[in-house]
Amino acid sequence: MDSFGAGMGEGPILGAVETGGTKIICAVGDIDGRITDRMTIPTDVPDVSVPKILEFFSDKDIDAIGIGAFGPIDVIPESENYGSIRKCERRGWSHYPLLRTICDGLGVPGDMDTDVNTACLGEYRYGAGKGAEVLLYITVGTGIGIGITIDGRPLHGMMHPEGGHVAAVRHPDDRFEGTCPFHGGCIEGLACGPAIKGRWGAEGKDLEDRPEVWEMEAHYLSQLVRNCMMTVAPNRIVMGGGVMQQTRLFPMIRQRVREQVNGYMDCPETSDMENYIVPSALGGDQALLGGFVLAHSALRGKGGIR
Amino acid sequence: MDSFGAGMGEGPILGAVETGGTKIICAVGDIDGRITDRMTIPTDVPDVSVPKILEFFSDKDIDAIGIGAFGPIDVIPESENYGSIRKCERRGWSHYPLLRTICDGLGVPGDMDTDVNTACLGEYRYGAGKGAEVLLYITVGTGIGIGITIDGRPLHGMMHPEGGHVAAVRHPDDRFEGTCPFHGGCIEGLACGPAIKGRWGAEGKDLEDRPEVWEMEAHYLSQLVRNCMMTVAPNRIVMGGGVMQQTRLFPMIRQRVREQVNGYMDCPETSDMENYIVPSALGGDQALLGGFVLAHSALRGKGGIR
Repeated sequence: MDSFGAGMGEGPILGAVETGGTKIICAVGDIDGRITDRMTIPTDVPDVSVPKILEFFSDKDIDAIGIGAFGPIDVIPESENYGSIRKCERRGWSHYPLLRTICDGLGVPGDMDTDVNTACLGEYRYGAGKGAEVLLYITVGTGIGIGITIDGRPLHGMMHPEGGHVAAVRHPDDRFEGTCPFHGGCIEGLACGPAIKGRWGAEGKDLEDRPEVWEMEAHYLSQLVRNCMMTVAPNRIVMGGGVMQQTRLFPMIRQRVREQVNGYMDCPETSDMENYIVPSALGGDQALLGGFVLAHSALRGKGGIR
Repeated sequence: MDSFGAGMGEGPILGAVETGGTKIICAVGDIDGRITDRMTIPTDVPDVSVPKILEFFSDKDIDAIGIGAFGPIDVIPESENYGSIRKCERRGWSHYPLLRTICDGLGVPGDMDTDVNTACLGEYRYGAGKGAEVLLYITVGTGIGIGITIDGRPLHGMMHPEGGHVAAVRHPDDRFEGTCPFHGGCIEGLACGPAIKGRWGAEGKDLEDRPEVWEMEAHYLSQLVRNCMMTVAPNRIVMGGGVMQQTRLFPMIRQRVREQVNGYMDCPETSDMENYIVPSALGGDQALLGGFVLAHSALRGKGGIR
């Protein structure tokens, strides 16, 4: 029996927060991946959103907290801004010390990573990426992001991966300029949800009978997958996010990746594409569950702050 | 004082082998990065080359050996083919058990990685990549390869990185079809040494007064750098290989990377490009020196075979 917490009988009570572009989700649970309580609020400026987060957890008796946040964020342990949002276009959030504010407000240790690295961690521990030494998670939604874990540890170098922003070889029929304010037609700029809407004039869910939409989407996403494969040779690739709810994309992406790689990476993994490029197994909760893993590590003094 | 070996007074005597497309280099040295003896032979079929390697080391009294080999190779510790060359187009080398043959032939433990991962390890320990948590090494020569170390440990997933084979956005003036037998116009196919020769009809060293050659080369190499940055956020990028002897490429690549990243990765590292994208500091010996690191680890039972 664990000495931390008592609320659920065994083990510590863990909190998780996922901050997204439109909503923030808070959850309470444990390291076995059970979620016992949750709350969703719209994303507002920090002075509005953060007090609501603190209020939600105020009577939950959590022992630690893990946060998966929209990037860019400071993930360098030696940095005095560890756990802060970096300069960004989201009103009020630039340089906001999110991790410190929440840990201090609740009086618990905690840790924070990008939403995608945290989702990757959730898939590694509980989901479709179990046991993958190098695991790649790709989210395709409002933006396109990648998370990488190596032996269950999120990858950070000078910062975190920002794999949606790689260069894109255009589809020959594509004249859309791209939505990315930094790079125009990077993979994110040409294949994220808003790019679909910008190019075709409707949301993906209203374009289900337009095969050219999905053909173009698969062109860009397969390119991203191929580039990541050549760069980090992941043992498995999990894809999630709103756009990937169009499950028809999976076979289309697998086929194009097979064609593009063209036998060059001839591994057991790539000979079984149906189990190599897979949907998230956690139904949208991957970042929250990864947050529990971050919280649990912070509680044990492995990473994070107190 | 170390208990291994005695030949150089202190510490074990280490052997290193670098197998390249045209030549094989063997070296003797120590973990301080001193090379005390070396031999270079042309690359032939294994039945010719490997006996010469074994003969060279036969009187060198080495305690362990590290090999940096042309890929693709089997780097999965659990594999029964660990340390073998994988299927390749090089006559005689497909499935050749290089590490096992050399370790058994010399009666010493050893380890093996790709030439580029091994070079990356050399730069991390002795060269231009000291202290870089995530270090990226890019070689541009007969092929284009990448190596990645994370905290000094070479990255492997289902196999090793093969970063030269990412998709390439073509230079608008480029009509060259590309040299890669797998992907045609991937970055390697459009920017390796043979691609320069195929496109312009001469070797790089005879094209020094043709600025359009280097402008196009920088276009492709900066794209590779940008994609790797977005994927693994390296703390430093070391570039080596024959083509990078054209040192004019460094400022051209830095400038284009700065333009392409466009402020998106705003880190201390990227604000000092001259110290972020740097030439190898080991004068061509980076893979041999990385071989010493592999040998030393194998001697201590960390990785490799006995």
